[in-house]
Amino acid sequence: MAQRLLILNGPNLNMLGLREPGIYGSETLADVEAMCVATAKAHGFDAECKQTNHEGQMIDWIHAARGTIDGIVINPGAWTHTSVAIHDAFAAAEVPVLEVHISNVHKREAFRHHSYVSLIAVGVIAGLGTHGYKLAIDHFALLLKQ
Amino acid sequence: MAQRLLILNGPNLNMLGLREPGIYGSETLADVEAMCVATAKAHGFDAECKQTNHEGQMIDWIHAARGTIDGIVINPGAWTHTSVAIHDAFAAAEVPVLEVHISNVHKREAFRHHSYVSLIAVGVIAGLGTHGYKLAIDHFALLLKQ
Amino acid sequence: MAQRLLILNGPNLNMLGLREPGIYGSETLADVEAMCVATAKAHGFDAECKQTNHEGQMIDWIHAARGTIDGIVINPGAWTHTSVAIHDAFAAAEVPVLEVHISNVHKREAFRHHSYVSLIAVGVIAGLGTHGYKLAIDHFALLLKQ
Amino acid sequence: MAQRLLILNGPNLNMLGLREPGIYGSETLADVEAMCVATAKAHGFDAECKQTNHEGQMIDWIHAARGTIDGIVINPGAWTHTSVAIHDAFAAAEVPVLEVHISNVHKREAFRHHSYVSLIAVGVIAGLGTHGYKLAIDHFALLLKQ
Amino acid sequence: MAQRLLILNGPNLNMLGLREPGIYGSETLADVEAMCVATAKAHGFDAECKQTNHEGQMIDWIHAARGTIDGIVINPGAWTHTSVAIHDAFAAAEVPVLEVHISNVHKREAFRHHSYVSLIAVGVIAGLGTHGYKLAIDHFALLLKQ
Amino acid sequence: MAQRLLILNGPNLNMLGLREPGIYGSETLADVEAMCVATAKAHGFDAECKQTNHEGQMIDWIHAARGTIDGIVINPGAWTHTSVAIHDAFAAAEVPVLEVHISNVHKREAFRHHSYVSLIAVGVIAGLGTHGYKLAIDHFALLLKQ
Amino acid sequence: MAQRLLILNGPNLNMLGLREPGIYGSETLADVEAMCVATAKAHGFDAECKQTNHEGQMIDWIHAARGTIDGIVINPGAWTHTSVAIHDAFAAAEVPVLEVHISNVHKREAFRHHSYVSLIAVGVIAGLGTHGYKLAIDHFALLLKQ
Amino acid sequence: MAQRLLILNGPNLNMLGLREPGIYGSETLADVEAMCVATAKAHGFDAECKQTNHEGQMIDWIHAARGTIDGIVINPGAWTHTSVAIHDAFAAAEVPVLEVHISNVHKREAFRHHSYVSLIAVGVIAGLGTHGYKLAIDHFALLLKQ
Amino acid sequence: MAQRLLILNGPNLNMLGLREPGIYGSETLADVEAMCVATAKAHGFDAECKQTNHEGQMIDWIHAARGTIDGIVINPGAWTHTSVAIHDAFAAAEVPVLEVHISNVHKREAFRHHSYVSLIAVGVIAGLGTHGYKLAIDHFALLLKQ
Amino acid sequence: MAQRLLILNGPNLNMLGLREPGIYGSETLADVEAMCVATAKAHGFDAECKQTNHEGQMIDWIHAARGTIDGIVINPGAWTHTSVAIHDAFAAAEVPVLEVHISNVHKREAFRHHSYVSLIAVGVIAGLGTHGYKLAIDHFALLLKQ
Amino acid sequence: MAQRLLILNGPNLNMLGLREPGIYGSETLADVEAMCVATAKAHGFDAECKQTNHEGQMIDWIHAARGTIDGIVINPGAWTHTSVAIHDAFAAAEVPVLEVHISNVHKREAFRHHSYVSLIAVGVIAGLGTHGYKLAIDHFALLLKQ
Amino acid sequence: MAQRLLILNGPNLNMLGLREPGIYGSETLADVEAMCVATAKAHGFDAECKQTNHEGQMIDWIHAARGTIDGIVINPGAWTHTSVAIHDAFAAAEVPVLEVHISNVHKREAFRHHSYVSLIAVGVIAGLGTHGYKLAIDHFALLLKQ
Repeated sequence: MAQRLLILNGPNLNMLGLREPGIYGSETLADVEAMCVATAKAHGFDAECKQTNHEGQMIDWIHAARGTIDGIVINPGAWTHTSVAIHDAFAAAEVPVLEVHISNVHKREAFRHHSYVSLIAVGVIAGLGTHGYKLAIDHFALLLKQ
Repeated sequence: MAQRLLILNGPNLNMLGLREPGIYGSETLADVEAMCVATAKAHGFDAECKQTNHEGQMIDWIHAARGTIDGIVINPGAWTHTSVAIHDAFAAAEVPVLEVHISNVHKREAFRHHSYVSLIAVGVIAGLGTHGYKLAIDHFALLLKQ
Repeated sequence: MAQRLLILNGPNLNMLGLREPGIYGSETLADVEAMCVATAKAHGFDAECKQTNHEGQMIDWIHAARGTIDGIVINPGAWTHTSVAIHDAFAAAEVPVLEVHISNVHKREAFRHHSYVSLIAVGVIAGLGTHGYKLAIDHFALLLKQ
Repeated sequence: MAQRLLILNGPNLNMLGLREPGIYGSETLADVEAMCVATAKAHGFDAECKQTNHEGQMIDWIHAARGTIDGIVINPGAWTHTSVAIHDAFAAAEVPVLEVHISNVHKREAFRHHSYVSLIAVGVIAGLGTHGYKLAIDHFALLLKQ
Repeated sequence: MAQRLLILNGPNLNMLGLREPGIYGSETLADVEAMCVATAKAHGFDAECKQTNHEGQMIDWIHAARGTIDGIVINPGAWTHTSVAIHDAFAAAEVPVLEVHISNVHKREAFRHHSYVSLIAVGVIAGLGTHGYKLAIDHFALLLKQ
Repeated sequence: MAQRLLILNGPNLNMLGLREPGIYGSETLADVEAMCVATAKAHGFDAECKQTNHEGQMIDWIHAARGTIDGIVINPGAWTHTSVAIHDAFAAAEVPVLEVHISNVHKREAFRHHSYVSLIAVGVIAGLGTHGYKLAIDHFALLLKQ
Repeated sequence: MAQRLLILNGPNLNMLGLREPGIYGSETLADVEAMCVATAKAHGFDAECKQTNHEGQMIDWIHAARGTIDGIVINPGAWTHTSVAIHDAFAAAEVPVLEVHISNVHKREAFRHHSYVSLIAVGVIAGLGTHGYKLAIDHFALLLKQ
Repeated sequence: MAQRLLILNGPNLNMLGLREPGIYGSETLADVEAMCVATAKAHGFDAECKQTNHEGQMIDWIHAARGTIDGIVINPGAWTHTSVAIHDAFAAAEVPVLEVHISNVHKREAFRHHSYVSLIAVGVIAGLGTHGYKLAIDHFALLLKQ
Repeated sequence: MAQRLLILNGPNLNMLGLREPGIYGSETLADVEAMCVATAKAHGFDAECKQTNHEGQMIDWIHAARGTIDGIVINPGAWTHTSVAIHDAFAAAEVPVLEVHISNVHKREAFRHHSYVSLIAVGVIAGLGTHGYKLAIDHFALLLKQ
Repeated sequence: MAQRLLILNGPNLNMLGLREPGIYGSETLADVEAMCVATAKAHGFDAECKQTNHEGQMIDWIHAARGTIDGIVINPGAWTHTSVAIHDAFAAAEVPVLEVHISNVHKREAFRHHSYVSLIAVGVIAGLGTHGYKLAIDHFALLLKQ
Repeated sequence: MAQRLLILNGPNLNMLGLREPGIYGSETLADVEAMCVATAKAHGFDAECKQTNHEGQMIDWIHAARGTIDGIVINPGAWTHTSVAIHDAFAAAEVPVLEVHISNVHKREAFRHHSYVSLIAVGVIAGLGTHGYKLAIDHFALLLKQ
Repeated sequence: MAQRLLILNGPNLNMLGLREPGIYGSETLADVEAMCVATAKAHGFDAECKQTNHEGQMIDWIHAARGTIDGIVINPGAWTHTSVAIHDAFAAAEVPVLEVHISNVHKREAFRHHSYVSLIAVGVIAGLGTHGYKLAIDHFALLLKQ
């Protein structure tokens, strides 16, 4: 049976393509999700994509991944910098996670320089635009074979 | 067609009139919302008032304002100090926003001195009680004519 | 009529028994809640237990306690360290609250050393495992008699 | 007899209309003062307007307000951030004060984020341009009736 | 043979009942110690109670507990915040320790927010008045059975 | 010829007796100055008393003391905490200076805990009310004899 | 019956006259204590002088002052900067206290700039040499008459 | 003519495979460089790989890239956190740069959390092992086509 | 018509030659001003020299330079470190400014290391004694020709 | 007559060999003291060894060394990081002191990184186990010959 | 024999004229060095100019200046902010040094605001473009005559 | 075959005997190295001594020690405080290291109080002059026998 990936997007990423295109580009979230599913399929993974602006919903999804999902790609959006609860949800889920940021957060406001998710993630990709999602899935192809 | 204002209240403001009346006064949220609608109407605006204790709900409303609302008055309550996600929602919505605080937050606990919303708001009114909402709407009357 | 207690658990505590058993032990949340109800009954209290990963839901429950509940035991989980909104909800509810942490948060990461809830709680019990809930209820037996 | 307002402007506000019009707009101080007097009159107040670049002069005016003035609107300019002496002058004068900033100081340099005047003011209006003065006077109309 | 508990009180706790009764209540240290002994006896423990204003004396007592005492309840008073030596004494004694504070130290001056003892204690009870001592002994009843 | 003392008072001290009598007492500045002159005379000094709310004026007076005055007693008021210029004026004047504060500044707001004047003063008296001026003059009686 | 003063000296002050005479002068502690007793007697007080290098001893003396002593002059030496326990002892004793430092601590190392004792003292005299003790006793003559 | 990539490795990366294999894995630098060249070739790039422990050498190589190299992949090693000079070299070279870290630096010592290179890089990949180099080259395949 | 320079000196610089000659040298302000006028004349400039200990006076002079003066050389003295108002005056005046310090402020007390004037100045010369004024005028000779 | 050394050990060092042998090794304090006396004798010194958990006792011993002891080796234990009083005792004693730590304190908790004793010691040896005492005595052999 | 000056340029200054011309201007390093040699010659100095991107090389040159060079002009580039080693090299060389920055570093990123070189330099010139080198040499003409 | 020691000296230590003899003494580096070789030989070690002002050179030497050297004594000079790269080189080399400082760095500028090398060293000797090298070698005699 195929290994399963979960692609999670946090708050405001439903506005992709609309919000600050100078920073985030003009692709929509649907475009990105379609690309993720196709990339995953090319590696032989099943992939499911979800987005929410509700932290509680995100936590519930992460919990549900426990024992059912082989890898999570998450762009935690603004929660990156503020949510200890999502950090703890990953600790409870025990699923490997890769953190993706479309923009290079290290060049932006100081409050975007710290990430609670990085403390529990395998690794982080930032600033490579929506291509970062594809590279994260490529990395799971390597990681989940081991 | 009339220009449209959105009056948003964040967490715990549904308890207005009950909570710490020494700080917040004895008017209820319904009183304040009625006053806001009347003030808006006097300026020729349509105004809609919403309150939620759910950050995700607030973000959804701000997103929905994009392209449909001409100005937002928000009292972000406790999220003022902690929510990068609401800051980012305003960046995505691209609607002018005025920030209102009933109490003078600068006189209270140190954790109330920083506002993520102020970084993206046109301006801020604090400490003028519920009258601050009215003055914010008065300011939109000036701002939206320009 | 019996006095009423509310036992509230915040984000990720639904994973109790699964999540990091080295830190949190192997009891499930259901086990803990059953023990709380039994402890309360032994003191002549009615107790109701609730858990949520949604901050807005937690705030709504705290508001609803105003005038109907005699004491709240809360394990705010990760919100302990980040949620001004829950702090403010307790200010609005005006119900005495005891804060419980299963682990000794003072020995863990620096971001777990500050608690917004402690600023408004009667007292705090940390590091005594799930026994801390029982001791908190025992304390309400003393406190609510006075 | 009419209640009396004092409208005070601190250092560099005499340059209004000349200085950094991108930040402060093109109205002159005389324009603003005329608008303030007219607004006050419309509410039945007598208003007097003064500006100085000399901190000692400002302190003397604030002292003189004690027992003779019913409300002060002040734009403390750069002294907002540096003058404990003006803070203390208001403590000595015991006249209610509203603080106005033409620009949204919270979006500017970090050294403009702290205000000594806010610690003693009733409330603060920032970022609403010179309209902030008018709204402050409107607020005194409410405040001084109570 | 009965297991043995040591109940230690640090500086100024000999003034209990006299010192700031608004914060610490009106029971004397003798009252508290009698209650501790009775509570311990009810659980089948032998308990000994000691108080000192001399840090060196406290360290000597903690050392002497090594291999002879099964559990320590300590209210370290002001040393909580300043004494690395007492922290190290517990490391040397290798006896499980529960830390009790009568008041909720987290609501008081900032210098009372950090505890060296918490870094080495099993857990902490704060703000439950002198009842905290009883609950700590109750917890040893659970802990020492395991 | 008699040795000469200069008694300097900084901003807002002209309001003594009016301003916050709970902190500063009910004596007026004239009362204090009369007491200072009398105390000085009793020690055989000539004393002159000056007060200003203008920092530049204060600096000029300090400069003028160079070579003409034997000792300065200053209550720098709010400038204590903000004026490097007055610190430097004392360095230029090379006259021994005693710093007096009517209230115990160490118990008040954090911004009153640092003094630029203390860095150049012989010593400091704080919290002894207006009696502090007298004791400072008494100290000059000792100091200038040596 | 005469009012009673207690003159307390903390660690290392027994070395007065030997230790760093450039900072502390050449008088011995016995000289200072004799001067204090004489000064007190001249005001009609009984005065007792004590010195210790043991914090616990100092705390015991402060406790014993409760209800038996009318005023305390203390030079807490190094404990000024580190002892919360002595701060709390004064809170328990409820006797007015004046804090004296022989040197101007504000000109010395940064760790000497903060005083726990100042938070509870009536006032502070620093930098006036051993004359500071005399002035503190003079101040009690005024204070205890009121 | 083929576009050219430069793969730069900073201090201690010559020890790859030897140094702390638990953190950095068992591949040698030669393995990684061979993989980089092969990956680049597969995308139609020429790639050259260099490593140095001499900051001056690294700066010289970055300068030489100006106008001759189309993209740089750098693992700056320890210089990430300390070298303003390398940051400035990239500013001078005006070649797009991707920053790679083998380990997840955000989980390690605090002094590894800040990167001067991130301030000037297009993006960052951390924690994906040596696979991160491959993904960076894959990203240049996308970036340099645009 | 000749271009015009304004040479401004801030607080305490009237004491030049008297104040701390080890730091500031033995030339008087009159000497320095004469040298400045001569230097300016040699470059074909008209130069006017002013000094004040009154911040308000300094601000007024800076305002008056707007549109009438081609370049300002200022030694802001102690205001360098404390006056946001002078910073803002330069923003209002829109005249190029060179900042001069006689001593090397970076070697002195920490509070002399930050300059508000540097944030708005073209450049800064520090530690070159009174020769710094001459070099600043020499620089205007270059700058105003461009 | 032989030169005299004093070997002082602070709090908890009486537990040497018992306390955390992974950090401190398995030698007892008696072993270390015997080795110190023997080492000293080999260099022709008389050595006396003392240990206390009472800060006041330690201060008294340091005072007594004045004029009678030629060199002090001290392991101040936890007081290293907290005791200004011991720092001051060394200033009063005017005896050269060498500071020894058995463990490498720089690798341990942050609160062990600062030493008050280092500010007054000739030098420091840390992390060389109990051999550090021997090396310190060896150094006195060199130092006291000069 | 002519006095000798050494003109040193640190990392990235070889890119002058290429790198960020908006900040650094369009002159090349060769242009600047030629101007320096000419300026020096006009004052009767021999001048030698060197640039390196290797810190070790710079240190060697500074050491070599000891006893052979009369004055050093250095633009330490990025090392200004990070190199304690260059600071110490100047301490070892005991040659007077003037520090030059082409741009006004105080207006740029915060990490450019601190200079280790300023702690040991005679003085600093910043923001005057490459003219700063000339003015530094002019200053040596004055300094070395004294 | 004899065990091998490597004695490394960092930047500016080639100036020993010349540089600031008040701090570092009058021995030259050659003197110190000769003493180190002799000390090592007396313990039966082969010792090699190297010094460099080039960080890259130092790193290369440390790498080369891997598997060939039994112990390293290093005086990292200024790199102590700034070089993460040297810290990482030791991690890669896996050779035990002792850190020596000639002066007591804890008494000097604040930027000399932190050491990256201490985080990886066995132990540290500071302030014992060049004798510290000898004591470090003596310690290896003990350490390498175990």
